[in-house]
Amino acid sequence: MIPDSSADSAARPIAIIGGTGPAGTGVALRWARAGETIIIGSREAQRAEQTAKIIQQKAGPGAKVSGMENSAACAAANILVLTVPFEGQAALVKQLKPAIAPGSILIDATVPLAASVGGRASRTLGVWQGSAAQQTAELVPEKVSVVAAFHNLSADLLNGDAPLDCDVIVCSDDPEASRLARQLAAKIPGVRALDGGKLENARIVEQITALLIGLNIRHKGHAGIRITGLPPQAYR
Amino acid sequence: MIPDSSADSAARPIAIIGGTGPAGTGVALRWARAGETIIIGSREAQRAEQTAKIIQQKAGPGAKVSGMENSAACAAANILVLTVPFEGQAALVKQLKPAIAPGSILIDATVPLAASVGGRASRTLGVWQGSAAQQTAELVPEKVSVVAAFHNLSADLLNGDAPLDCDVIVCSDDPEASRLARQLAAKIPGVRALDGGKLENARIVEQITALLIGLNIRHKGHAGIRITGLPPQAYR
Repeated sequence: MIPDSSADSAARPIAIIGGTGPAGTGVALRWARAGETIIIGSREAQRAEQTAKIIQQKAGPGAKVSGMENSAACAAANILVLTVPFEGQAALVKQLKPAIAPGSILIDATVPLAASVGGRASRTLGVWQGSAAQQTAELVPEKVSVVAAFHNLSADLLNGDAPLDCDVIVCSDDPEASRLARQLAAKIPGVRALDGGKLENARIVEQITALLIGLNIRHKGHAGIRITGLPPQAYR
Repeated sequence: MIPDSSADSAARPIAIIGGTGPAGTGVALRWARAGETIIIGSREAQRAEQTAKIIQQKAGPGAKVSGMENSAACAAANILVLTVPFEGQAALVKQLKPAIAPGSILIDATVPLAASVGGRASRTLGVWQGSAAQQTAELVPEKVSVVAAFHNLSADLLNGDAPLDCDVIVCSDDPEASRLARQLAAKIPGVRALDGGKLENARIVEQITALLIGLNIRHKGHAGIRITGLPPQAYR
């Protein structure tokens, strides 16, 4: 059962696993501002609580942001967003597996950057399953839907106040989970969400992040991507 | 020696190898309209001449478009653009090798789509060298610079009249060759050209085409990409 994105947001909190890094705090901030109930997950509960407090303050008085240890965050939510470096991804998903409830959706933003093994952030590693998201899909419990999304958003810009100038391409084998992730993406100001098809297509979307990092290094910016040439209904 | 893009265009014609397909005719049309001297190459001289005549008519009275057999086209130009399906790429480059003059630049737009071996156009093949362009770089004569570019432009839109809404990411190990290719890209109305760094980065740019094809199938459009968040000087 996919959580209903139109339900009262307190009834379906979003847990950001590994949410104390820049990508995690960035989406947390934007969703908190949009009225979502956010749980920041971290290895250490105290660190999660501290980060939650900072996001709460940035997001404003009405924001609902709390912090918990990662397993507790998983257990408290049916929408999980994974924002950890690739080198920690598989071990963390294995560790959290017992805490992930059937019917949850796990939105994976992991990019297999070569930086994970001491290489460059503008290069990627080959993942046996095809993509970091497909690796995750092998590791989650049954009846948990994996969605790949949010790879190409600049963490720096997410943590700021301006609208973003970037599309989010969403890949999943579960159309309803994809739809929920697209609805959440569209709550970030400036973001348009696009159905990118099956989870296997995540391999390309993940690679794009490495290209954008290379462009940032070369041209000193915060690169994002827009898809042009599609009809307006593609972004629904 | 890299041909000078600011030189009289008749002095440095552009040969479009495999130029009778939709991608080839599309860039030929746009460059002919921009005043470039174009040679369409094809396996058969007669087919090349016919295609050249059609492009000439579409481009207007001042256009300079001729057609030749591929080897003759190579021998007549120092700027070569390769627009062939992946399945024919390596054999064609090997065959043309004696006709490619030292100092030439070869701009490769090839995408290793799985369609080349009967698979889907929204999937790619793994190329041992990392990308179709790097495969080409292994096959060209010494002192020929390979540039990867123009993968992500819609052939349908190129063959039309409207400006495109797409950026061209240019990858090459030769900065001067990259610069020339970016200058040529910027002659296509609506296109902005970006230095994408070394040739090895072509593997990501090539993959993006498969993603765009998937989006076209899913959403019925002519998808392109724009890179956002970079300073204006990045597009020079």
